[in-house]
Amino acid sequence: MSKQLFNRMLYGGDYNPNQWPKDIWSEDMRIFKKASINSATINVFSWAKIQPSEDEYYFDELDQIIEMLSEEKYDIVLATSTASLPAWMVKKYPEVARTDYEGRHHKFGQRHNACPNSLVYQKYARRMAEKLAERYGDHPHVTCWHINNEYGGECFCENCEKAFRIWVQNRYKTIENLNKAWNLEFWGHTIYEWDEIVLPNALSEGIGRDKTAFAGISIDYRRFNSDSMLENYKMEKNAIRSFDPNTPITTNLMGTYKILDYFKWAKELDIVSWDNYPSYNTPLSLTAMTHDLMRGLKDGQPFMLMEQTPSQQNWQPYNSLKRPGKMRAQSYQTIAHGADTIQYFQLRRSVGACEKFHGAVIEHVGHEETRVFREVAQLGKELETLSEVIGTRFNSKVGIIFDWDNYWALEYTSGPNKDLKYVDQIHQYYEFFYDRNIPVDMISVDSDFSDYDLVVAPVLYMLKDGLANRLTDFVKNGGHFVTTFMSGIVNESDNVYLGGYPGPLREMAGVWVEEIDALAPEQSNQVAFTNGSKHSCNLLCDIIHLEGAEAVAYYEEDFYANSPSVTKNDFGKGKFWYVGTQLEKSGISEILQQVVEGAKINALVAKSDGLEITKRENQEHAYYFVINQHDDEKAMPEEFVGKTDILTGEVASASTTLKKFDVYILKGN
Amino acid sequence: MSKQLFNRMLYGGDYNPNQWPKDIWSEDMRIFKKASINSATINVFSWAKIQPSEDEYYFDELDQIIEMLSEEKYDIVLATSTASLPAWMVKKYPEVARTDYEGRHHKFGQRHNACPNSLVYQKYARRMAEKLAERYGDHPHVTCWHINNEYGGECFCENCEKAFRIWVQNRYKTIENLNKAWNLEFWGHTIYEWDEIVLPNALSEGIGRDKTAFAGISIDYRRFNSDSMLENYKMEKNAIRSFDPNTPITTNLMGTYKILDYFKWAKELDIVSWDNYPSYNTPLSLTAMTHDLMRGLKDGQPFMLMEQTPSQQNWQPYNSLKRPGKMRAQSYQTIAHGADTIQYFQLRRSVGACEKFHGAVIEHVGHEETRVFREVAQLGKELETLSEVIGTRFNSKVGIIFDWDNYWALEYTSGPNKDLKYVDQIHQYYEFFYDRNIPVDMISVDSDFSDYDLVVAPVLYMLKDGLANRLTDFVKNGGHFVTTFMSGIVNESDNVYLGGYPGPLREMAGVWVEEIDALAPEQSNQVAFTNGSKHSCNLLCDIIHLEGAEAVAYYEEDFYANSPSVTKNDFGKGKFWYVGTQLEKSGISEILQQVVEGAKINALVAKSDGLEITKRENQEHAYYFVINQHDDEKAMPEEFVGKTDILTGEVASASTTLKKFDVYILKGN
Amino acid sequence: MSKQLFNRMLYGGDYNPNQWPKDIWSEDMRIFKKASINSATINVFSWAKIQPSEDEYYFDELDQIIEMLSEEKYDIVLATSTASLPAWMVKKYPEVARTDYEGRHHKFGQRHNACPNSLVYQKYARRMAEKLAERYGDHPHVTCWHINNEYGGECFCENCEKAFRIWVQNRYKTIENLNKAWNLEFWGHTIYEWDEIVLPNALSEGIGRDKTAFAGISIDYRRFNSDSMLENYKMEKNAIRSFDPNTPITTNLMGTYKILDYFKWAKELDIVSWDNYPSYNTPLSLTAMTHDLMRGLKDGQPFMLMEQTPSQQNWQPYNSLKRPGKMRAQSYQTIAHGADTIQYFQLRRSVGACEKFHGAVIEHVGHEETRVFREVAQLGKELETLSEVIGTRFNSKVGIIFDWDNYWALEYTSGPNKDLKYVDQIHQYYEFFYDRNIPVDMISVDSDFSDYDLVVAPVLYMLKDGLANRLTDFVKNGGHFVTTFMSGIVNESDNVYLGGYPGPLREMAGVWVEEIDALAPEQSNQVAFTNGSKHSCNLLCDIIHLEGAEAVAYYEEDFYANSPSVTKNDFGKGKFWYVGTQLEKSGISEILQQVVEGAKINALVAKSDGLEITKRENQEHAYYFVINQHDDEKAMPEEFVGKTDILTGEVASASTTLKKFDVYILKGN
Repeated sequence: MSKQLFNRMLYGGDYNPNQWPKDIWSEDMRIFKKASINSATINVFSWAKIQPSEDEYYFDELDQIIEMLSEEKYDIVLATSTASLPAWMVKKYPEVARTDYEGRHHKFGQRHNACPNSLVYQKYARRMAEKLAERYGDHPHVTCWHINNEYGGECFCENCEKAFRIWVQNRYKTIENLNKAWNLEFWGHTIYEWDEIVLPNALSEGIGRDKTAFAGISIDYRRFNSDSMLENYKMEKNAIRSFDPNTPITTNLMGTYKILDYFKWAKELDIVSWDNYPSYNTPLSLTAMTHDLMRGLKDGQPFMLMEQTPSQQNWQPYNSLKRPGKMRAQSYQTIAHGADTIQYFQLRRSVGACEKFHGAVIEHVGHEETRVFREVAQLGKELETLSEVIGTRFNSKVGIIFDWDNYWALEYTSGPNKDLKYVDQIHQYYEFFYDRNIPVDMISVDSDFSDYDLVVAPVLYMLKDGLANRLTDFVKNGGHFVTTFMSGIVNESDNVYLGGYPGPLREMAGVWVEEIDALAPEQSNQVAFTNGSKHSCNLLCDIIHLEGAEAVAYYEEDFYANSPSVTKNDFGKGKFWYVGTQLEKSGISEILQQVVEGAKINALVAKSDGLEITKRENQEHAYYFVINQHDDEKAMPEEFVGKTDILTGEVASASTTLKKFDVYILKGN
Repeated sequence: MSKQLFNRMLYGGDYNPNQWPKDIWSEDMRIFKKASINSATINVFSWAKIQPSEDEYYFDELDQIIEMLSEEKYDIVLATSTASLPAWMVKKYPEVARTDYEGRHHKFGQRHNACPNSLVYQKYARRMAEKLAERYGDHPHVTCWHINNEYGGECFCENCEKAFRIWVQNRYKTIENLNKAWNLEFWGHTIYEWDEIVLPNALSEGIGRDKTAFAGISIDYRRFNSDSMLENYKMEKNAIRSFDPNTPITTNLMGTYKILDYFKWAKELDIVSWDNYPSYNTPLSLTAMTHDLMRGLKDGQPFMLMEQTPSQQNWQPYNSLKRPGKMRAQSYQTIAHGADTIQYFQLRRSVGACEKFHGAVIEHVGHEETRVFREVAQLGKELETLSEVIGTRFNSKVGIIFDWDNYWALEYTSGPNKDLKYVDQIHQYYEFFYDRNIPVDMISVDSDFSDYDLVVAPVLYMLKDGLANRLTDFVKNGGHFVTTFMSGIVNESDNVYLGGYPGPLREMAGVWVEEIDALAPEQSNQVAFTNGSKHSCNLLCDIIHLEGAEAVAYYEEDFYANSPSVTKNDFGKGKFWYVGTQLEKSGISEILQQVVEGAKINALVAKSDGLEITKRENQEHAYYFVINQHDDEKAMPEEFVGKTDILTGEVASASTTLKKFDVYILKGN
Repeated sequence: MSKQLFNRMLYGGDYNPNQWPKDIWSEDMRIFKKASINSATINVFSWAKIQPSEDEYYFDELDQIIEMLSEEKYDIVLATSTASLPAWMVKKYPEVARTDYEGRHHKFGQRHNACPNSLVYQKYARRMAEKLAERYGDHPHVTCWHINNEYGGECFCENCEKAFRIWVQNRYKTIENLNKAWNLEFWGHTIYEWDEIVLPNALSEGIGRDKTAFAGISIDYRRFNSDSMLENYKMEKNAIRSFDPNTPITTNLMGTYKILDYFKWAKELDIVSWDNYPSYNTPLSLTAMTHDLMRGLKDGQPFMLMEQTPSQQNWQPYNSLKRPGKMRAQSYQTIAHGADTIQYFQLRRSVGACEKFHGAVIEHVGHEETRVFREVAQLGKELETLSEVIGTRFNSKVGIIFDWDNYWALEYTSGPNKDLKYVDQIHQYYEFFYDRNIPVDMISVDSDFSDYDLVVAPVLYMLKDGLANRLTDFVKNGGHFVTTFMSGIVNESDNVYLGGYPGPLREMAGVWVEEIDALAPEQSNQVAFTNGSKHSCNLLCDIIHLEGAEAVAYYEEDFYANSPSVTKNDFGKGKFWYVGTQLEKSGISEILQQVVEGAKINALVAKSDGLEITKRENQEHAYYFVINQHDDEKAMPEEFVGKTDILTGEVASASTTLKKFDVYILKGN
């Protein structure tokens, strides 16, 4: 159980009052108070304001803002402002800007625009973090540092190229190792000197925007780029720590964002924070999965919701309003999956530029007589009562592996099927557990599998060093393991494990996959389970030979009709399931139902009828979150009858029902 | 009533005989004569021919062409040839070429390829205009100057960047004003020196091709770019005027072309001219609207049709032939909406390069025994009789606002709905009047609204300085005004008017728009009018509070069911209509029917049954244009019985009908 | 009859053992032997391996590979390795890399990456060819040289630009000729010095990726680029010939690959070789046509199949497995259309990089117990018996013209219809003959037409110098000729033949095409044949005047209803057919059925019921290939009863049937 980072539920969001006159500030404070707002993230994009030139620093306005918030006893989340370069710096030192995938060096503009390997950028970013920490590090109301903002993107400049060569040299030691790791003999790309390495983009190994001639190089570039930004983060963190040893430090992540390996990042964060922006048609289960992933980054430690919109977004193609009650339900879903804070982007709407149509606590109308504000205020009032939930944890017997190296490698493959997408594959398996309210942890390949009875790892394409052994131990000792087609194929340099798919998993799986058929979108096959049920499949079809495993299902069509499509194998005390094709939802359910029965995994309630239910607990109490996000009214599960809702004090009865967006937090023990 | 610029209907087009041997020229003249052609636009792309090097000029061939045309008493529209750079100039002075949105400096090629801020380009373009004007300015047959050609495109080179900084400095005077106007505090883009400004393209603030992180910068760049080219135009105009004080000067515009603010340009044109290229599936009403817009650019002054194709285009995806009669009907539609000339691109088909499949009076076959020629000749003969129509004007009680700043700003918004397109929104309202033959002027935001009983301004998103007051005066004094969702939102720098939508229009509208819902393409709502009719709506739905206005219609679905969707408000002696959503065509008709009844606006005829009818008039006579562009035969409206068709001398009777493409021009008084 | 280049059917493929340890090599040899493999293509991408720096060469490993293969009496196809630049060379001499269409100079990466006009590249490529030829030229087992690999792509660098100017000067001699040829007066692009010419790409005349403002320039660039690479090829060929006067030399082509004029290339190849990669949904007839084209490149001389996959590809969107029997049937289709070798890419699967999911004789599993291997081995065994087929030729009375200049020119046209694609148009006509097993040669515009009774030339848009006369001779002397819309339009510089379409073909055709209507995808017309049958048409509709020809069919709709759409004309002793629109398949059949009856062209069998049948023959024997690629069982055509299958020795009887993928090679005389 981790330390409880905050002693109240932080409720607030991004506040950027530089954009409007000071006479509005006090009005802001008045309105926020009505919404029970108690925290603000500030200084996110103020670098140019604070540092008008090379050696000038100007903190007066920030002092005023901090003072104002402190008077109201806000928890201040203080950003370091380094996510957007000052214009003067780009003019004076063009190297601080990035070179894009197309090889174009950028001029000044946008944000997240700094080259992570520019020494000039590093110098000034570090100095800014130092100055802020020196000035505000011991401020009693600065309760969290927010370094930079939504780190991301890529740079392909010469400084990055040079840094990449050093990174590569550190990883591979010798040119010989490197030639082998990247299989450079293929197409005669053999190198003899480190400086023959160039960054993989549209001017070198890149094929289109998303493919590559040499996945080994491109995956290593992704690792390097993630590491480069992580070094930027650590540099600022260290700068802060030299003045402020205690205040928690974070940066806001972005869920399944592809570019950064968040499991690696999370090690350097005191607390994970992230920005949750579902689209109008994002499945609820995908949002839940992403929350679970964010919680999983630090082994279940509660996280901060750093950003969500009170209602509307601006950058989606279609920016629907959140329906009445939806924002509240979404917020509770967030807490239900492990958040200990709820924060908005933005507290007051910008007057200009590209986020002016992004929702806010205070809309352009400027007053609090709005539907959105009323919902914000209601939620704020409720959250004040929730401090007992802070720090509570989860107890899941199921772990689903999510791994950025696999994300990159799988989507870089040239063949067999271009429609194979990593997050989508993981989500198809997550959804089964979500629908049944079986608690799940999203875990890394480095997690301690022995914490779980069941580990699910769809498309575990890249099997990094040591993983096969650790999975072997897990299954041998009684673990249940499920994996799919496109697993066990390559090592961490994207070179194939020779000797037959699924490579190092072959023995445990008890199968050999001889061929992998790719189906075009208009094609499908059908799978018949030994219990008689039939389900459609598509995308990829492994042609499987049993080598000890038992067939659970067979293909029904094409030349591999009657050959196994899904298998299970007893291995040690455990069981290894192999799913050789992409099944429709009912087919995945068919398998996982058998799996959870075999592993004796239980749902939180026997019959949930579409309610989303999670359980957070500490040593004394359990808290059941029960949320109805559906149009029709749902009955309270009978397991909860007699339990008390901590939001209302109401005791759930057999006749209690939940209308759309109703939420209960039922306290048990 | 403006001066009548030409005393006969100019009939001709672009003539580029440089491409073929001189022995063909006399054959051209023979054939043109059979088509009653009396004018030619020449010298459009002859710069390289006339000026073979830095200091050489060669006018012999142009002299010969002018002489030849003069002998036949042609009206010569003399182009200045500066729309396509000579190759030698680009080789010698690469700066004359443009840098594109992607930041790539171009080599020699295409046309409309000169950087408007290149001093080298300016020097030689000015000198060319001077030399032409000196040589031909007093030529009796040169009756119109055509500067450059279809000005357009954008340049992002260093010279433009420097010029932009000066333009910005002139507009905003201080850095402080600028930071505020562009809201640069957002994302920390605050600048301290003018030279920190960079042009907004793919290397700076541009998001994709069409969006931007800072609309304020990008809109100002659009203004600057339009102004830069307008300066080019004025430079040539002044050069001509120093030798030729009298001949009308124009350049050919392109309808709703987005890049140039034609209302600003029109002030510098003696006569508007434009190029009309509908596609095979362009609605007739959109063509009509564009004609009305071109006529509106100079407050109703008749315009020149500078280009249309006799039949086929080449640059559409699918270049259908114009069906027999279609070209004639399209030409009369053009005159019906205000043209005093009909000119073709091209008089003879090019032998090579990308326009060789573009239609011409003389096709590749080289003789006049073609369907297309026969139609051209028939029309030519008819136009000879039409000089009495020249200079006649319109009398419209309805003005529809079209505004380039709004065009740019609306389509730069990030949110709420990406499918929101300016011209499309305007056209949806224009169409109502078109269908009923209610005369409409397309007007600017600077027009004198008191000329109209009804002003319609869909998506009047950007309300520039002074406009709210002028609209207030208009409505107070009895004007009827219709606007829609996404109106009154921002000022001329794209910063939001705080205090509630629709900003400065809120009082007049008597409504407050609390929220703006965005609907995805698969979504819709329904609107019920108080009179019982129901219509579907989509795209955006304003959630409206009545503040004095009366609800005319209500939403029927979703959480804002039963809230107002369309309102009207009595304000002073006038009436202000607010339409909060995009209604299907029948819904817009429902509203506008009520509006025109309230404003006592009349159609030209009671029952037009799909006929397109306009009225041009002078102090003595009225001319009713009646055109049938539909497959089925239509009855002549009874109002016209007894009137004489000036094309045939025929008197319309109660049994007169119009077959497909039939045209009548009925003279009244 | 050409010399028989090989005395056994080469069976093998690309072998790149550098990628794996030497202890695997002997295992490879063992397995290949089981598959009757007798040849290997080696050294394709080994440049960096063999030449580690400017002056070092290292042949030890290549020696070992050649020795190993020689011991097993392999036919070695020795590649020169120049298709992929060494990294050190690009670092040291950046000019060896290409500049792309967007104007970006590339860094190191990919393959086919050398600028063809780089003197540095030429120097080292020539030297490599020399060194290889010197070392291995007289090696008894090196039986074929494979220069470079799949030449292709384009370069737009400064060296290419300079070389282009020289190429242009050689072609046109004077600036005046050039201005005329490219019609540079259009848009005022007139040049005065050769160095005003720039390469046509996105920074100059290019419109999007595929269109151009001046097709004349762009077509000449295509010719130049094809020639530049051909010069590279010839340079290596000459280098080899200076050491090795006898061994056949080739490079592998890619079917209808657009960028290189293969008819021009084939003159420099001793034997054509090509890589056949149909997609899962490629029509069989398109593959057949491409084989026939490859055979046609050298007037019917048998070709090598240099590459096909044993099963799966990697670079398609959806890489289906080849179904059991499919690879064998595809291989026999290849031989049936003229191949004398069957070779795979790849003999063993790569362990890493982008082709690791491309099929191979030895899969990643590393042993021979795979379905794919068994099919490879079966085929290998069979091919050993086929040497009598080697060198046999075709006897076709039908020639279909394929011409790269037309390919380029037709697809560069701006208008009339963007959906007009060259290969698609040719294929529509080829398909008729394929379906009926009427032997066809794919021929060039320079072929001797008198070898044929019928010549078909769809969309013969560009009529190069002399072609009209040669076609006139052909038809006058009794030839039957079929052409279509968009024929006879331009000369070899893409300038229109004035005087009426179809230009120089007008007299022979006996028609004048006055207009060309373009239909959008949702539009169609209908054609009624004089024999009563009716067929839909679309895309383009010529409006035709008969000038001596007889109408075979008429349009039924639109304003040109009842005008001719298909015509035939007696000219001299021959007949000229003109098809004015794109007919649906049944309509093309209707015409060609009449054509072949008139020309007395016979199919190989009277009734083939979907079987694919070809005939190869020499002076003694005829070999009938009979292949069933359909799901249903087919009866052996009665003409073959009594003939012996050389694969099995079986004699075909009246009751013989072919199941899916069954193949017979029946020997006749």
